[in-house]
Amino acid sequence: MGAADAARVHERDAERLGELLAQQGWIVLTGGRPFGVMEAAMRGAKRVHGSLTIGVLPTADEAPSSFVDVAIRTDLGHGRNNVNVLSSDVVFACGIEGPGTASEVALAIKNGRPVVLVAPAEAASRFFLSLPGAKIRVVPSADEAAAIAVTLLDNR
Amino acid sequence: MGAADAARVHERDAERLGELLAQQGWIVLTGGRPFGVMEAAMRGAKRVHGSLTIGVLPTADEAPSSFVDVAIRTDLGHGRNNVNVLSSDVVFACGIEGPGTASEVALAIKNGRPVVLVAPAEAASRFFLSLPGAKIRVVPSADEAAAIAVTLLDNR
Amino acid sequence: MGAADAARVHERDAERLGELLAQQGWIVLTGGRPFGVMEAAMRGAKRVHGSLTIGVLPTADEAPSSFVDVAIRTDLGHGRNNVNVLSSDVVFACGIEGPGTASEVALAIKNGRPVVLVAPAEAASRFFLSLPGAKIRVVPSADEAAAIAVTLLDNR
Amino acid sequence: MGAADAARVHERDAERLGELLAQQGWIVLTGGRPFGVMEAAMRGAKRVHGSLTIGVLPTADEAPSSFVDVAIRTDLGHGRNNVNVLSSDVVFACGIEGPGTASEVALAIKNGRPVVLVAPAEAASRFFLSLPGAKIRVVPSADEAAAIAVTLLDNR
Repeated sequence: MGAADAARVHERDAERLGELLAQQGWIVLTGGRPFGVMEAAMRGAKRVHGSLTIGVLPTADEAPSSFVDVAIRTDLGHGRNNVNVLSSDVVFACGIEGPGTASEVALAIKNGRPVVLVAPAEAASRFFLSLPGAKIRVVPSADEAAAIAVTLLDNR
Repeated sequence: MGAADAARVHERDAERLGELLAQQGWIVLTGGRPFGVMEAAMRGAKRVHGSLTIGVLPTADEAPSSFVDVAIRTDLGHGRNNVNVLSSDVVFACGIEGPGTASEVALAIKNGRPVVLVAPAEAASRFFLSLPGAKIRVVPSADEAAAIAVTLLDNR
Repeated sequence: MGAADAARVHERDAERLGELLAQQGWIVLTGGRPFGVMEAAMRGAKRVHGSLTIGVLPTADEAPSSFVDVAIRTDLGHGRNNVNVLSSDVVFACGIEGPGTASEVALAIKNGRPVVLVAPAEAASRFFLSLPGAKIRVVPSADEAAAIAVTLLDNR
Repeated sequence: MGAADAARVHERDAERLGELLAQQGWIVLTGGRPFGVMEAAMRGAKRVHGSLTIGVLPTADEAPSSFVDVAIRTDLGHGRNNVNVLSSDVVFACGIEGPGTASEVALAIKNGRPVVLVAPAEAASRFFLSLPGAKIRVVPSADEAAAIAVTLLDNR
């Protein structure tokens, strides 16, 4: 998860993370649009042979990122953010630069999904770490995020 | 699409259709639960090497069918029926035995998706064919459904 | 419930039904848009002093009918049809002229809500009456619909 | 908006705010459940003669707070939080004690709705004020919140 108009550092993290997760055999799921962190994560994942990417789109008919293998069209607007996090075993946020990503992190915590914040601003990590019941890890980079991913799997 | 408590004939159609579509390289998407037409279609698809199945679940945490490769968890209740049809290039209904399947066929038409009714009851096909703007084909069996599938692809 | 581009007879039924239900003290809930059966039902209701109308809109920001007292903005597209019927104690369909109304009737049955079909086409009533578990009444006009409304209340 | 298991101070703020807003003729909309800030806000509102309260429930069939005049049943789980904020002209959060309220504040900002944070923790207000494009006011109490409400109305 991350902004559609992300800073370059967060796009780089997302691209690296997408690639590392795909190398470990994870399916990479994003908001599916051809912008920012979503696009970068799936571009990274699709560098890996045999990878699989899922894009959960907010509308009924828009074109997904060209790096999306399977487009799920929800027509839920920002309500699709809840589907994104519910469908994820672990939620990674590359930066929390805007309210869309903030809503996904909040909904992930609310739904009991483990969350990894990758290089968040200090105000963001401080806030989310203050919430009761949050299963959150804060890491400085994509490599650390990928390294701990498997340890965060809940046993659904 | 089809009933969770389907008649055997519709389950057989679904299983055959899932297999035929997967052989043609289609992704098979269903409501994801381990029952009836959903389960049968994905069981058929998973007989094919390299197939991919998507299960769009109504709740946040239930166990999907064991034939689901990717579970999308919506927590939308029956509102997830709209996601099912929006995410499909062609919607196949194996029987229309209950209101859940009826709602999916109606929503598919409303959203402009092509629909194939496989062996529907006469009252069902007569009703849906009467609706204005419906892109509907009625076929007697899974083989006919698979044979015309590719001709129904809209160019989104 | 009913079509946005309804035939005049169904608009007349909706307007009459909205007025009769409001006179009986019911809240009138529709899809909220300024068209067809939705608009007509709420126009009828607002003729009654002290009436209350709710419009459940499919988008985030559109203008509701001027006869809507409370606009609920869902951004769910046609998925809002499930909210319409879940929020209703009794679902009235004035005509079933298109797939949107058909989806609402189907979802109402699926969710166990009582349904009254007012002057439906014969193919529609025959189909919906054939579905198992349907709590459906078919009546020829708004006056009959209003007369039986109170007897259909489930005790939630 | 606010927690179902809120601290007493936030419940008191919510009750006072519900009453003040109803006195000014506002409709008071909450998540509709019989707990915490939701219940308190509507209890306050219903002290005012002629007030109107709307409860947007997450499920299909649960009992709403007894202070709810109109129950909207969404079956959207936490996805109903997007409906809550979209349907509000101004969003008030009494405390941001948990991830549910955090998601509502984030979604309100994402959807361009004006937000008033009433007595938030410092980490929460610092985070949300840091988000770009946020139309947020932070106030210490219900009285200040009600006093500025009308100035925050956007002209939809």
